Amino acid sequence: MRDVSIIGIGQTQVAEHWDRSLRHLAGDAVLAAMKDAGIDPGAVDALYVGNMLSGLLTGQEHLGALIADFVGLRGIEALKVEAACGSGAAALRQGYIAVAGGLHDFVIICGVEKMTDTVNAETTTGLVMAADADYESIHGLTFVSINALLMRRYMYEYGVQHKDFAQFAVNAHGNAVGNPNALYRRPITAEHFARARMIADPINLLDSSGIGDGAAAVVLCPSSMAREYGNGRAVHVKASSMATDAVAVHDRHDPLWLSAAEASAFKAYQQAGVGLHDIDLFEVHDAFTVMSALSLEAVGFAQRGKGVQLAQAGEINREGRIPICTMGGLKARGHPVGATGIYQVVEVAQQLRGQAGDNQIPNARLGMAQNIGGSGATVITHIFEAQD
Amino acid sequence: MRDVSIIGIGQTQVAEHWDRSLRHLAGDAVLAAMKDAGIDPGAVDALYVGNMLSGLLTGQEHLGALIADFVGLRGIEALKVEAACGSGAAALRQGYIAVAGGLHDFVIICGVEKMTDTVNAETTTGLVMAADADYESIHGLTFVSINALLMRRYMYEYGVQHKDFAQFAVNAHGNAVGNPNALYRRPITAEHFARARMIADPINLLDSSGIGDGAAAVVLCPSSMAREYGNGRAVHVKASSMATDAVAVHDRHDPLWLSAAEASAFKAYQQAGVGLHDIDLFEVHDAFTVMSALSLEAVGFAQRGKGVQLAQAGEINREGRIPICTMGGLKARGHPVGATGIYQVVEVAQQLRGQAGDNQIPNARLGMAQNIGGSGATVITHIFEAQD
Repeated sequence: MRDVSIIGIGQTQVAEHWDRSLRHLAGDAVLAAMKDAGIDPGAVDALYVGNMLSGLLTGQEHLGALIADFVGLRGIEALKVEAACGSGAAALRQGYIAVAGGLHDFVIICGVEKMTDTVNAETTTGLVMAADADYESIHGLTFVSINALLMRRYMYEYGVQHKDFAQFAVNAHGNAVGNPNALYRRPITAEHFARARMIADPINLLDSSGIGDGAAAVVLCPSSMAREYGNGRAVHVKASSMATDAVAVHDRHDPLWLSAAEASAFKAYQQAGVGLHDIDLFEVHDAFTVMSALSLEAVGFAQRGKGVQLAQAGEINREGRIPICTMGGLKARGHPVGATGIYQVVEVAQQLRGQAGDNQIPNARLGMAQNIGGSGATVITHIFEAQD
Repeated sequence: MRDVSIIGIGQTQVAEHWDRSLRHLAGDAVLAAMKDAGIDPGAVDALYVGNMLSGLLTGQEHLGALIADFVGLRGIEALKVEAACGSGAAALRQGYIAVAGGLHDFVIICGVEKMTDTVNAETTTGLVMAADADYESIHGLTFVSINALLMRRYMYEYGVQHKDFAQFAVNAHGNAVGNPNALYRRPITAEHFARARMIADPINLLDSSGIGDGAAAVVLCPSSMAREYGNGRAVHVKASSMATDAVAVHDRHDPLWLSAAEASAFKAYQQAGVGLHDIDLFEVHDAFTVMSALSLEAVGFAQRGKGVQLAQAGEINREGRIPICTMGGLKARGHPVGATGIYQVVEVAQQLRGQAGDNQIPNARLGMAQNIGGSGATVITHIFEAQD
């Protein structure tokens, strides 16, 4: 197995891009990543597209060939990978497998989602396809209400109140201010959080990540070739792992334990040969505040039921023990679902390359990104290291 | 790179399975393949699901985790691959890459599609998502009418008539009689073909493959381990390749030349170290009769514009130079779109294992399967050899 590195990154702003179609968004991100890598298009072996909703929302499947052609790579191997909101990192993992195994040398992974200007259905109809259609959504559950049930249970079991989750949202919004690609570049306070409009009790507007249109892309190649590209700013993929759980929450052994997040993270620690304390930042899948808490517990940064205390103690801030959502997270950078996993990776790369601007984590060497499909049924964890 | 083999196969009948949900169909195929391989569930590293339409038609994405859990493999790496009607073989290729590269040892690939009992939309709305939404379907083109334009152009350019395509349908239906898993197990004549109901001029009912519900699955492992499984009937994956073209037909350099089929096939010949004359059977993607002709030309079995003559001369029959659609093809076995690519592979394996019953090609040693997404924009070619 070969070591694999990221040699180029690209992204669009997360926004309501009413004037940009799905292929234009993807094209912007892919071309930016290729330019950043400084690679010749003729060298690219394959394109992996992470996307969840293009069929339902814009009447377009077959994104692999479509985007490959649009960015000037007609003819190359290209396909779409889907794992609900984990589609982006699941696509990255396929590209990683191909390069690590020696089947390809240069691959591009693009996560893209177009959620405004939809033709067939509303996004709520789309997002609940991450849940179990036959046993969850058929009863009228939306994706937000499934997470609301989890949050209610969390509050009941661990004796915490809604206001205790505030710092997850406050931290994310604070970090988004410094990210020009974020959807919501405005800070919020705990008071804003407490007063926000209710969505699905107890989840309110500021518990929830904002959906949007966006695309992000990375270029991978074997680490041994990486120094020739990307101006010597390559980022080594130290670990890549994926695990699953039951899709329906009621089928899980323990609804308040993200066993796939645990399994995926601990496999990644082992592969990377690192411990929790080595990790300088963690891009967490904060689709809802309760998911941040559950994720921090599952991967080991907090004990069971203590995720909110980590946030309340300021340990998730840029100066804390484990900074999360350093560019705004899903909450405030925005959550274009199939693209999110690649945004997380691009942001970790920005940090490890020292290009995170005002949001730079000083001396960041090791970063982790965890992308979750559904309410925890698919979890993909990657660990990255700055490559000297 | 390691050699890779198929050690287990499974399939459901292609039919209108009104009493079977998507997960049940997939489960039937996966469990059959695991039983055929004789592997322990604990040995399985990953599940790759090929599917195109589950989101739109049944409100269910996230099939990787869903099916993994349903078949008793909760926790393993699992995801969905989509490349329009080429989703099945695209998923197989991802599994192949993971095993060949040494990232996984035992993987299962399942193609599944549920096209009856749909909730959100009709299948016509779904199938056209294989075409270009912004430049083809927006004008009212359906997937059948795009193929009708291709067939009309073919007839005009090469001076052939509709009746000249009859033998593609006659051969496929004749072969389906001997396949218990086929959708249409009845023979037809050239007269039936000529009299069939018009769908989109010049494509009539018997030019068209029948959609249906179905699932097929294979188990892969390194060839070096294959002898211990599947009762010594392993099938070696001698080549795996994928290529793309523009999605919109009008964007291609030549609408009557499937350049991705050519590129993918010739890469596969090179990888396998075989020539055309070594291949004993060819499972062709006969979504419409014109696609059979174009495919045979692109991969080299017929000269440009001479694909129909190959059929008329009987060379595609079981006794001919290059038997195609030996178990009924898309036309008569049926075309559950995202599952089709795996049905083709299962059928080649049946032939190479000497288990094709009345349809057995005598002394079949080398078989090729080619799965096409859209009207030629994504093409995946695999070549298989009986493993002694």
